[in-house]
Amino acid sequence: MGVMGDTFTQLLIPVAALVGIGFALLQWLLVSKVKVSADSDLNNGYSDRLIEEEEEGIDHEDVAAKCAEIQNAISVGATSFLFTEYRYLSIFMGVFGAIIFLFLGSVKGFSTKSEPCTYNTGSLCKPALANALFSTIAFLLGAMTSVLSGFLGMKIATYANARTTLEARKGVGKAFIVAFRSGAVMGFLLAASGLLVLYVSIHLFSLYYGDDWEGLYESITGYGLGGSSMALFGRVGGGIYTKAADVGADLVGKVERNIPEDDPRNPAVIADNVGDNVGDIAGMGSDLFGSYAEASCAALFVASISSFGISHDYTAMSFPLIISSVGIVVCLGTTLFATDFVEIKNVSEIEPSLKRQLLISTILMTAGIAVVSFFALPSEFTLFNFGSTKTVKNWHLFFCVSIGLWAGLVIGYITEYYTSNAYSPVQDVADSCRTGAATNVIFGLALGYKSVIIPIFAIAIAIYVSFSMAAMYGIAVAALGMLSTIATGLAIDAYGPISDNAGGIAEMAGMSHKIRQRTDALDAAGNTTAAIGKGFAIGSAALVSLALFGAFVSRAGIETVDVLTPKVFIGLIVGAMLPYWFSAMTMKSVGSAALKMVEEVRRQFNTIPGLMEGRAKPDYATCVKISTDASLREMIPPGALVMLTPLIAGTLFGVETLAGVLAGSLVSGVQVAISASNTGGAWDNAKKYIEAGASEHARSLGPKGSDPHKAAVIGDTIGDPLKDTSGPSLNILIKLMAVESLVFAPFFAAHGGLLFKLL
Amino acid sequence: MGVMGDTFTQLLIPVAALVGIGFALLQWLLVSKVKVSADSDLNNGYSDRLIEEEEEGIDHEDVAAKCAEIQNAISVGATSFLFTEYRYLSIFMGVFGAIIFLFLGSVKGFSTKSEPCTYNTGSLCKPALANALFSTIAFLLGAMTSVLSGFLGMKIATYANARTTLEARKGVGKAFIVAFRSGAVMGFLLAASGLLVLYVSIHLFSLYYGDDWEGLYESITGYGLGGSSMALFGRVGGGIYTKAADVGADLVGKVERNIPEDDPRNPAVIADNVGDNVGDIAGMGSDLFGSYAEASCAALFVASISSFGISHDYTAMSFPLIISSVGIVVCLGTTLFATDFVEIKNVSEIEPSLKRQLLISTILMTAGIAVVSFFALPSEFTLFNFGSTKTVKNWHLFFCVSIGLWAGLVIGYITEYYTSNAYSPVQDVADSCRTGAATNVIFGLALGYKSVIIPIFAIAIAIYVSFSMAAMYGIAVAALGMLSTIATGLAIDAYGPISDNAGGIAEMAGMSHKIRQRTDALDAAGNTTAAIGKGFAIGSAALVSLALFGAFVSRAGIETVDVLTPKVFIGLIVGAMLPYWFSAMTMKSVGSAALKMVEEVRRQFNTIPGLMEGRAKPDYATCVKISTDASLREMIPPGALVMLTPLIAGTLFGVETLAGVLAGSLVSGVQVAISASNTGGAWDNAKKYIEAGASEHARSLGPKGSDPHKAAVIGDTIGDPLKDTSGPSLNILIKLMAVESLVFAPFFAAHGGLLFKLL
Repeated sequence: MGVMGDTFTQLLIPVAALVGIGFALLQWLLVSKVKVSADSDLNNGYSDRLIEEEEEGIDHEDVAAKCAEIQNAISVGATSFLFTEYRYLSIFMGVFGAIIFLFLGSVKGFSTKSEPCTYNTGSLCKPALANALFSTIAFLLGAMTSVLSGFLGMKIATYANARTTLEARKGVGKAFIVAFRSGAVMGFLLAASGLLVLYVSIHLFSLYYGDDWEGLYESITGYGLGGSSMALFGRVGGGIYTKAADVGADLVGKVERNIPEDDPRNPAVIADNVGDNVGDIAGMGSDLFGSYAEASCAALFVASISSFGISHDYTAMSFPLIISSVGIVVCLGTTLFATDFVEIKNVSEIEPSLKRQLLISTILMTAGIAVVSFFALPSEFTLFNFGSTKTVKNWHLFFCVSIGLWAGLVIGYITEYYTSNAYSPVQDVADSCRTGAATNVIFGLALGYKSVIIPIFAIAIAIYVSFSMAAMYGIAVAALGMLSTIATGLAIDAYGPISDNAGGIAEMAGMSHKIRQRTDALDAAGNTTAAIGKGFAIGSAALVSLALFGAFVSRAGIETVDVLTPKVFIGLIVGAMLPYWFSAMTMKSVGSAALKMVEEVRRQFNTIPGLMEGRAKPDYATCVKISTDASLREMIPPGALVMLTPLIAGTLFGVETLAGVLAGSLVSGVQVAISASNTGGAWDNAKKYIEAGASEHARSLGPKGSDPHKAAVIGDTIGDPLKDTSGPSLNILIKLMAVESLVFAPFFAAHGGLLFKLL
Repeated sequence: MGVMGDTFTQLLIPVAALVGIGFALLQWLLVSKVKVSADSDLNNGYSDRLIEEEEEGIDHEDVAAKCAEIQNAISVGATSFLFTEYRYLSIFMGVFGAIIFLFLGSVKGFSTKSEPCTYNTGSLCKPALANALFSTIAFLLGAMTSVLSGFLGMKIATYANARTTLEARKGVGKAFIVAFRSGAVMGFLLAASGLLVLYVSIHLFSLYYGDDWEGLYESITGYGLGGSSMALFGRVGGGIYTKAADVGADLVGKVERNIPEDDPRNPAVIADNVGDNVGDIAGMGSDLFGSYAEASCAALFVASISSFGISHDYTAMSFPLIISSVGIVVCLGTTLFATDFVEIKNVSEIEPSLKRQLLISTILMTAGIAVVSFFALPSEFTLFNFGSTKTVKNWHLFFCVSIGLWAGLVIGYITEYYTSNAYSPVQDVADSCRTGAATNVIFGLALGYKSVIIPIFAIAIAIYVSFSMAAMYGIAVAALGMLSTIATGLAIDAYGPISDNAGGIAEMAGMSHKIRQRTDALDAAGNTTAAIGKGFAIGSAALVSLALFGAFVSRAGIETVDVLTPKVFIGLIVGAMLPYWFSAMTMKSVGSAALKMVEEVRRQFNTIPGLMEGRAKPDYATCVKISTDASLREMIPPGALVMLTPLIAGTLFGVETLAGVLAGSLVSGVQVAISASNTGGAWDNAKKYIEAGASEHARSLGPKGSDPHKAAVIGDTIGDPLKDTSGPSLNILIKLMAVESLVFAPFFAAHGGLLFKLL
């Protein structure tokens, strides 16, 4: 037994979750102090800013009113899209919930008799039918929490964007704080509510399960599946939505009509801004919530069949949840460094400040992990390791969690290096625009490929260390380590789209060039942090899927996954193909939807008299509808690919082939996802580098409208679906197939491999 | 014992090889009948053609003389490059040969004592030092045969290109036959000489080895390593050479100066045409020779430790060589269908005729395999299967070889579907050029990703069937089955660059638009067949590497490669990353070299007075030098990555991690290679589709110089390094690492895993 008492653990987890929620609400309150209505400028400290606006001859009240109007349009669009999406998803949830219940219930022929436990030999465990029922309930809970996370994130982001724009008039530092605080609201709400729902669910489930921890934590894995399957549709649907609008708007606006990005004359501009919120915010929130839920479930499941579970050591069993609790507290302290301890005064301080967030949270968290590992865990315990057992010491687990955490930092920093325009890789890409779009694309693709190397080594080292020290439990807690600072990670990630929207609103509200420059600077840093966020998401997804894979293999009762057997090898090579199939679908969807958008935007420019001159208003709603329809229709085939593959592979080919598929899609998908995200991020920032013209070199490539800039815009447009649709969706592909396999493992083990049985 | 006697086998193999060489010489003789000097038009049947030329007011003697001059310049450039390259490679061969000798010699401490055999228990085998020596000799033989294959291919291609141009004046059918015959020269020379050298080597080696077949065939694996390592540098060096020149020429010529492709005013035009011969011809020839050598070695090695080897059944042991012998005869018959039985009269018949070649050779070969399997093999025998043995019947092997063969056909046809502009995928990509280069790139990437799906299923099915029926021997003979029609495959593949060059010569010699249209039609079909050739190359590479992987695992004495062990898993994920690292290097190399080329071409246009007006000659030699220098310098880092990875992984991390690396790079590299080749091929043909304007739809996108055409040119340029440098080099990455691991397996098994031993 560890030093920490069970009562303390029972208190620590919910208290940390509630503190996180409280902190999120506090941040929200602070953001809400910025008023977007036009009647409150005096008590809002706008006096210093008013001067500048007056200088440029723009009426302040008008601007604020306009911002409020645009914000409202974006918020209404995003809410309406998400509600439509959720209506579809609720049907899916119902159907898939029924499938879970039927498949798992059929394992023992819907018998209601208790069974001898698999690992805790000698005891009786609850019937398979109960596990089927509770897995279904956990699935629904996970799905609903995921939906809630995405929805709240979107609400906060649309609440914050106009406020960021208005604060940008006071200075870049003030605007930064609003954007960052809003990101923090989302980060903390999500981390804390994820933890709280999981904690409460476990306690409610245990009312039925009692001492049967095997069954209890088996059922809880449904929570991860629910979270991740919603995230799939959120990422894919949102990703298609946002990029169809973005690419469509750019192709006509920037390329054909030569009007700036986010110009209010562009009919697709509202759809584009709505997209940022439903794709980058809601999709990403669901994605990281899914990772968090899955990592926790994988760790809990593996723990439940280890000595913690057998000897019913509650505190040690809750180690994964305790790490997350400590993470919330650590992130709370870290946030203060960005919002209160240090003040941003200059554009050049934004990116370092965000990077510092990662470093501070990682250092503080390492100390936190040390404390937790020594107090919550027994000094020595045994873990289940594919048919054998492994003796582990508590300091082993300290290393496992820490190495995941630090691998995350390495991935974050490398991502920053490859996607920020402060370093040579992006500058080289920008430079290659001199010879046109083709060299820009060639250099950009090469950059993306190259950016894979160090993150993969970081992941490999993390895997080797944690795997060697504590088998699959080590991997699961390493994933949790990487995700332990999720509140901070999400804050800096969500900051990106908020700043992007703030820039859009500034442009649409007709604010001055100076304001737009400030929001552009925020946005450029945001592109980098968004790439960092994607790096975290994919890095943690790799560890999470491996942990889930291990849990699946344990639950399916496989002892080796031998590449030298044909069943496994064909799974491996087909699995490695799936990310390509999936990307082909999502890229093509974005392309086709963008073409439709282009036609509509062109039609409006050609048929609405006075639109180009700004005398008539475009029909924003039709563009919103095109994005909505396209994303809802097009998310079905890739969604089906992901959801059906494990079911088909497991049922027809059996658990060995399915294990191969999971391993193959994991090792191949990680590469595709990282390179796609970073290539896209680099192109976007190469364009921004030329536009900003901050150095002699950058100015030699510009200004806006020059040939190199045009080449850069083409790269940026190509990168859009790579970085915001197919790349990030791949995280979910690899995680979701793994968690689905885990949930359905008893069914596959009992009834799988039909085709081979027939032959 | 099979029905076929050993004496018959002893005769069949060299006779088939000699027939192949004879047939190649006959084809060469037929091609040489077309005279490129200007003084022989009467006895050359040009009378009908003269009229057309006169109509267009171009003097015939002048044109032929000009063709001869250009051909000579290309041939001199290519020869000089290859000699420079081979000078570097001979140093590499010496150094690496020494490494092989030292590493393998050290396995038993350079002892000269005979050892008990590993598999043929009870007998004595030759000392490890002898194996080291003969492996080194086999390595050098393989390397030299590879160099010879590449060099001869280049010679034939540069001999044929101007002849194809001149024949194009008579009609498209005549030109097609010259181009195709020249391809056949290369195909047959390569297939036959590869077989002959291997046959002779085995017989010479057996003078020393006598009954020790384990040692004999272990040493012979060096032949595959030699072949493949030359192919690596041929593919990478040649690929960088050709695409630096091509991209550089296009960026200034087509995009900036608006002059046609292959215009003689473009200073990089000779370098571009030289590149086609050293990259697409010599590189590809070395690559497929490498595949063929490796597949044979893998099959022979696995056979030598099966009951064939133990019981010294010579004919059954030679089964892999017999298949190749029959393949040569089958391809000989197939070739006649293209050159003699059917005559091409129309542009639209070219592609179907080339496709028919694949189908005919596959059907004939299936019958050939059936005969060989029933006569050469005993009706039942046992194979070694990772620690256990497996009983196999002769009809099992019939299925193994055939399924490889037919999987190759499927891959070929699917590749054609995705890269030919006769079908909707390429037409969709062309259509997406309406909205600019960005959508073109998005659709092209999506097409490449999608084109992976069916080939992977075909490979997976081939693997499953052959693996289940005859373990790793099944895989090896499936690979040989796919390569058994290599003479035909190479003929249709080499046809592509020859036609491409013919078009270049027509343009440079100032021939009429009509002639250029004919060579363009030949070339468009050539792009598709080049893509098919790449499909074959990668498909066979996948099977070959798996067979080599199996042989490596057997030789290293590993019985399982379990993904659930950290050593293997980190190998798997890092291995899956290597194709990206490698592609990043090669893409960047092409990009940088192209930028240098652009500067030089621009400099010449700006400083040589009268160049644009055609009054002054450009300085071709400087451009040739830039390509040469760039390719020789830039091939070293990717070459080192491939050659050192197995040595480092094996020495530091041991055979399990290395096995993971091989499996990971195989399953990931196949996807990257297929998608890169097909994306590039599709872009190239989308551009050609718009230029040719053969349909209403195509004309609505054109003509040359329209905005959609410009977008298509950008796609084509991006595709160049993908389809001709990084994509095809990946085949070699996966094969070479596997064969190198196989050769060094005894060393790794004895001394490997230093790092883990230290920890």
